[in-house]
Amino acid sequence: MRILAFDPGYERLGVAVLEKENGKEILLHSACIQTSAKLDFPTRLSELGAATLHLIKEWSPNGVALEKVFFTNNSKTAMQIAEVRGMLIYLAATHQLTIHQYTPNEVKVAVTGSGRADKTAIALMVPKLVAISRGKRLDDELDAIAVGITCLASVR
Amino acid sequence: MRILAFDPGYERLGVAVLEKENGKEILLHSACIQTSAKLDFPTRLSELGAATLHLIKEWSPNGVALEKVFFTNNSKTAMQIAEVRGMLIYLAATHQLTIHQYTPNEVKVAVTGSGRADKTAIALMVPKLVAISRGKRLDDELDAIAVGITCLASVR
Repeated sequence: MRILAFDPGYERLGVAVLEKENGKEILLHSACIQTSAKLDFPTRLSELGAATLHLIKEWSPNGVALEKVFFTNNSKTAMQIAEVRGMLIYLAATHQLTIHQYTPNEVKVAVTGSGRADKTAIALMVPKLVAISRGKRLDDELDAIAVGITCLASVR
Repeated sequence: MRILAFDPGYERLGVAVLEKENGKEILLHSACIQTSAKLDFPTRLSELGAATLHLIKEWSPNGVALEKVFFTNNSKTAMQIAEVRGMLIYLAATHQLTIHQYTPNEVKVAVTGSGRADKTAIALMVPKLVAISRGKRLDDELDAIAVGITCLASVR
């Protein structure tokens, strides 16, 4: 079972590849793909799509895991994040990858045990659950790893 | 100038191909692409993407026109419509097509002269602006034609 996990965004797309081997989660790859604010949205979406296709080709995952987005207001940002999700779901579906989606609450519970966890708690717990090489990581990358951990913990 | 216009939706995707020739708008093609409610969302998105790729290949448009979506509440439907928009924008961008986006209000003004127009007014006006073969059409198809008319009227 190998999962390509995303924390969807158009400025920063967190990505992680995780695998379950002998009941243990292993992190194979993680990154934060960034796009320039100088580019228009379609170009940024196209760059993120190219990076996603590259990841699918390089890592041959069995499935894709994504965080669900909830709109709390009529924000342009929330809509553009949903548009990134649409591109990711489309690419996963055209590559016959199963799509697993989790609410932010489900991710928090899977990683910290509590739905009230904040970003600091996630950042503290993720390295305790999977081996991560040293070095500072952006929240988006850690969130993608957390989504991947949630997926491997819940899929049978 | 040839435009591929969409009224984005995942149950029904309205599509229209329009061209401006000697200052006159001509409708070359329009349809309402439907997906089965029995399919999961990723499969529906994948089917709509395949239909979009077919339209791009068949009609070689210079640009794509889309209606903007506004979220008035935290609805699953609104998010899924944004996800369809993301897939459409991604496919347009990867085919180097310019993307034109219009608010529902801009479309109403372009087609009926008033931002307060309802669906009936749109349905009455669209056949007065472009030649449409007889037969009943779904709102989604008429809306896609209206978006295409708006685009041809505003792009120089």
